[in-house]
Amino acid sequence: MFPEYDLIVVGGGHAGCEAAHAAAKMGSKVLLITMNMQTIAQMSCNPAMGGVAKGQIVREIDALGGMSGIISDKSTVQFRMLNQSKGPAMWSPRTQNDRMRFAEEWRIALEQTPNLDLWQEMVKGIVVKEGRVVGVRTALDIEIPAKAVVLTNGTFLNGLIHIGEKQFGGGRSGEKAATGITEQLVSLGFEAGRMKTGTPPRIDGRSLNYSLMEEQKGDEDPRTFSYLTEQPIQKQLSCYITYTNEAVHETLQTGFDRSPMFNGRIKGLGPRYCPSIEDKINRFAERDRHQIFVEPEGWNTVEIYVNGFSTSLPEDVQYKALRQIPGFEAAKMFRPGYAIEYDYFPPTQLQLTLETRLIENLYFAGQINGTTGYEEAACQGLMAGINAHNKVHGKDPFVLKRSDAYIGVLIDDLVNKGTDEPYRMFTSRAEFRILLRQDNADLRLTETGHKLGLASDARLEKVLDKKNDLKRLLNDLKQRKMNPELTNEGLEELNTATLREATSALQLLRRPQIGIAELGRLDADLQQYLQRYPKEVVEQAEIHIKYETYIDKEQKLAERMEGLENHQIPQNFDYNKIIALSAEAKQKLNKTRPATIGQASRISGVSPADISVLTVYLGR
Amino acid sequence: MFPEYDLIVVGGGHAGCEAAHAAAKMGSKVLLITMNMQTIAQMSCNPAMGGVAKGQIVREIDALGGMSGIISDKSTVQFRMLNQSKGPAMWSPRTQNDRMRFAEEWRIALEQTPNLDLWQEMVKGIVVKEGRVVGVRTALDIEIPAKAVVLTNGTFLNGLIHIGEKQFGGGRSGEKAATGITEQLVSLGFEAGRMKTGTPPRIDGRSLNYSLMEEQKGDEDPRTFSYLTEQPIQKQLSCYITYTNEAVHETLQTGFDRSPMFNGRIKGLGPRYCPSIEDKINRFAERDRHQIFVEPEGWNTVEIYVNGFSTSLPEDVQYKALRQIPGFEAAKMFRPGYAIEYDYFPPTQLQLTLETRLIENLYFAGQINGTTGYEEAACQGLMAGINAHNKVHGKDPFVLKRSDAYIGVLIDDLVNKGTDEPYRMFTSRAEFRILLRQDNADLRLTETGHKLGLASDARLEKVLDKKNDLKRLLNDLKQRKMNPELTNEGLEELNTATLREATSALQLLRRPQIGIAELGRLDADLQQYLQRYPKEVVEQAEIHIKYETYIDKEQKLAERMEGLENHQIPQNFDYNKIIALSAEAKQKLNKTRPATIGQASRISGVSPADISVLTVYLGR
Ligand SMILES: Cc1cc2nc3c(=O)[nH]c(=O)nc-3n(C[C@H](O)[C@H](O)[C@H](O)COP(=O)(O)OP(=O)(O)OC[C@H]3O[C@@H](n4cnc5c(N)ncnc54)[C@H](O)[C@@H]3O)c2cc1C
Ligand SMILES: Cc1cc2nc3c(=O)[nH]c(=O)nc-3n(C[C@H](O)[C@H](O)[C@H](O)COP(=O)(O)OP(=O)(O)OC[C@H]3O[C@@H](n4cnc5c(N)ncnc54)[C@H](O)[C@@H]3O)c2cc1C
Repeated sequence: MFPEYDLIVVGGGHAGCEAAHAAAKMGSKVLLITMNMQTIAQMSCNPAMGGVAKGQIVREIDALGGMSGIISDKSTVQFRMLNQSKGPAMWSPRTQNDRMRFAEEWRIALEQTPNLDLWQEMVKGIVVKEGRVVGVRTALDIEIPAKAVVLTNGTFLNGLIHIGEKQFGGGRSGEKAATGITEQLVSLGFEAGRMKTGTPPRIDGRSLNYSLMEEQKGDEDPRTFSYLTEQPIQKQLSCYITYTNEAVHETLQTGFDRSPMFNGRIKGLGPRYCPSIEDKINRFAERDRHQIFVEPEGWNTVEIYVNGFSTSLPEDVQYKALRQIPGFEAAKMFRPGYAIEYDYFPPTQLQLTLETRLIENLYFAGQINGTTGYEEAACQGLMAGINAHNKVHGKDPFVLKRSDAYIGVLIDDLVNKGTDEPYRMFTSRAEFRILLRQDNADLRLTETGHKLGLASDARLEKVLDKKNDLKRLLNDLKQRKMNPELTNEGLEELNTATLREATSALQLLRRPQIGIAELGRLDADLQQYLQRYPKEVVEQAEIHIKYETYIDKEQKLAERMEGLENHQIPQNFDYNKIIALSAEAKQKLNKTRPATIGQASRISGVSPADISVLTVYLGR
Repeated sequence: MFPEYDLIVVGGGHAGCEAAHAAAKMGSKVLLITMNMQTIAQMSCNPAMGGVAKGQIVREIDALGGMSGIISDKSTVQFRMLNQSKGPAMWSPRTQNDRMRFAEEWRIALEQTPNLDLWQEMVKGIVVKEGRVVGVRTALDIEIPAKAVVLTNGTFLNGLIHIGEKQFGGGRSGEKAATGITEQLVSLGFEAGRMKTGTPPRIDGRSLNYSLMEEQKGDEDPRTFSYLTEQPIQKQLSCYITYTNEAVHETLQTGFDRSPMFNGRIKGLGPRYCPSIEDKINRFAERDRHQIFVEPEGWNTVEIYVNGFSTSLPEDVQYKALRQIPGFEAAKMFRPGYAIEYDYFPPTQLQLTLETRLIENLYFAGQINGTTGYEEAACQGLMAGINAHNKVHGKDPFVLKRSDAYIGVLIDDLVNKGTDEPYRMFTSRAEFRILLRQDNADLRLTETGHKLGLASDARLEKVLDKKNDLKRLLNDLKQRKMNPELTNEGLEELNTATLREATSALQLLRRPQIGIAELGRLDADLQQYLQRYPKEVVEQAEIHIKYETYIDKEQKLAERMEGLENHQIPQNFDYNKIIALSAEAKQKLNKTRPATIGQASRISGVSPADISVLTVYLGR
């Protein structure tokens, strides 16, 4: 009934959508199988994309030719560039999204992708022949053949929903869990674990009193996620901020004895950085309030997402506590918050391509690898899709280094360090975070994406134009002399030293008091000239000039690391024969089998001393 | 956690949405509980509203102040007025709809209805005190108090999905079944039964060859369902027509031994008038082809609905057979067709208000009553919502007579005759079908809807204007004399007798050859004059004049029937004491306990002779 596909992707969440789209776009014949075509690309939790570190990931996905940025732009109801008061390495785009539009736009995008077929059913297992995946088996017992398979089952594998003392099987509230896959993979030798995550109640926005909250508007000058989107949104919705208080905390505490988190019913570990509200008042007992973001779920719906109030306490406790929050006095709930436990597979069982070590051509991506978050899932899907395509077409693996992208950091962390709790991206995880900015993801990655056959010609042209413009502008700023007579008065006003002789614009820009906007105001001609360039190019030039020394330093470090990084370790290398290695290092290295010294250096339990020994031994 | 509601509606399908909206609009405090707020107002089967007899129902719902017409208009992708070649009693509006838009528009409409709260959860039972419903119990074991409850569980009660030899629990493909309610109601004394229905596979429209099919465009002059919608759609999508053939039938037959319909696995009776394709080739073995309508699922999706190919044969047989249909040679399936079995409650257990006889203030509406179809469900929901509101506010029951509306016919049929197979509306079920037209539903029902507090003032004004216009126009047409000199030439061309003396326009219109368009062409002044009136008024006048005798006859019959109809039978009347009644009639009457002689006359097994006896006995 089905032809043999190059690739079958199981699951139509954020990971699955990117995986299927990427491989199909690159030319693979792809089948995306998902339990319900009506729920493709559902945002299980908050109606938002991006944010600190996550926003960078979305831009990287976009730069490579993935879709998450474009879909986010099409469904944006509010845009904010976070951390604008900090250095540019910290700037992070974030959107609030219309939940329904987001899902619908993804569905339409997939339907319009050539080579991509869709099938609605539950997959209950994979088909393996001689250590290699050759297809999947569905609930209807159909065997669908494929050269490669990407599993992106999200929170659905043996999903168990908890609210207070009640438990239900389910992959998300109101949706069925997926069964069969974990059991089979374990029988094939995979190690599986259990994690948990939670979500807040949803509220009827008509029942809130916004006058008791602080309004949080979108940026006045909103941008976009995708480098391709021409037009940022014109109209935006506001969010609102309010706070819990001691009364709220006391009420919540009355439910602690019935909390599945505290009475041991939930076994899986939750995300430390997205704690539930009960977790927060428990762990930070000294804090007398916690911030609550009141977020709209879309343009037309009155449904409200209560960011910061994730909980699996009994629904009556949720309700009573909510109503003690300022503005929530008359709040009506649409759906209670809940926690969900699900199976994941410790990601140390993967290669850097996201292919499993145990079964050839089988890839895992998304929440199934122990991560949390749409962006984390989406970028893994993208990478798994690219690599599965390359593998079945006899092409080289595609691995991003830690100095290339947050995506590289994420996958390297997962594969080499593993994770015991849901893994979420932070800027602090990236040692090269001055290089890995949201403003330069296109400069970093689009040429690569184009070579892969994923990023379109239009995308490449755009980035080449940007590169050329940038080069020209930097050069011109270097050449352009600023005249003391013309500028000194302005410089004084800016509280910075006046000039004795003509000085290049570039040099002036190095001064902390002077940005490109100030420079323009000093010199009308320059102002005029700058207008020739797109805003992003001007900003890029400013960042380059202002942070040149930091950037150079990181660049050099990255290059030095790259030597190590790229120094291969033979796959069947016998660590036991190096006597000088610590016992723990031997054990970990034998287990993880890193491909390079760089990877080896990031395995927890492998010390710098061990790395030196290894480096010497491998002849460096 | 919840206040006491006037009304809880269980289930957010077509019935539940209308019920909740109507009662809330009338002023009841309403809670709509549904298993998944993401699936409110899903069209489980075909993406279309209306059609023969069903189109009339939508217009009646609209005239009373319900929402189905407005929602259909907002999501229309194609409009057709069916049966235009037949008399006006047969005209039936039908739309193809964008499935996602339809659901979303309903959700938005509900969210914007004051007094209407929403809660996402499964209801597992009702709470009864002293023979009266006082609330519901949810899966979380929350007891939510209410003065009345409407159950609209659709196909979800112990739903069981069949495809070939496979079976899964589910309320719709990919959705969970609902459990608990049937068992409880049976323990309370209700009789439950089992029915089945089916749906065709969904196809990737990109894989079809439309050049081998006939295009079916929308009407050139599309209309709307709602009397309120001002602007019919401007752009429309086409459907396509193709046919099965003997090869298709032979392929389907290879699956008959694995068909759950034929090998006895499905116990419930299916809708005779929406047969599956296997049923059709089985029952009509002499026909060598069946028509297939290829219908788009929406503006932006490539998904296609294969109307006429409902099936629960094994998916590989579905697939092979589909590909033998012209235009489907390369068809790719998105989702297989399937059949679903579910519990229903024989509707003879209801009163004409849709309140159950057994439990006070408990109402049933929709598929749970043994009907099939969105329109049938929606109108029951509307009536249950209105009646529940009236009951808890101490107002009179609201019952539509068979001569008032198709809705009246439907409920009267259900309650008095019951149904063994899924009940669907047909024009032939309505004995007063010349009165019950789609063009006059507003004239028939809007004043009533307004009195109920449901139809808005704007609606009432619109209908009063229409009435006045109509009266004026009819009068003017009667007064207006057509001059022989001016008209005879034209009359000859129309092959109708010339005039000797001036004759009224009204009289000329009675001739079959002359419609109002022709009349206008005979007399430019009249043409001019007619332009003052809205199109619907002119059409209405034409129908009135042309069908006056038929309409009058039905009207008189209806009035005569009404005498009988309204002749009350005491609720505790002892039929056994009337010796002249047939044994069967006694048994049926004792069981059904009709409220009036009219109702009694429609009980199957009660003969006209029995009715005469009863009428005499009751003193008429
Ligand atoms: C209750 C809840 C709370 C969360 N809270 C947070 C939070 O606070 N912060 C945060 O960052 N992230 C949170 N998340 C996580 C976030 O939703 C996920 O990280 C993200 O959705 C993962 O994407 P994914 O593609 O891996 O899987 P999902 O989005 O879960 O998608 C999985 C898809 O696969 C399908 N599927 C699964 N199994 C099968 C099968 N066997 N056959 C066919 N189809 C299958 C499903 O139908 C679904 O479409 C939460 C998730 C949930 C459910
Ligand atoms: C597979 C299939 C094929 C069909 N084929 C045809 C056809 O060919 N022709 C035709 O005319 N009609 C067909 N129908 C019927 C049509 O879909 C129904 O008549 C119509 O949808 C009934 O509307 P409803 O409101 O009664 O129920 P539904 O539309 O089924 O809605 C029921 C709602 O109640 C909710 N619910 C159920 N139980 C609970 C509970 N315990 N707690 C909370 N919520 C609950 C569900 O989630 C759902 O939202 C088909 C239906 C199905 C499923």
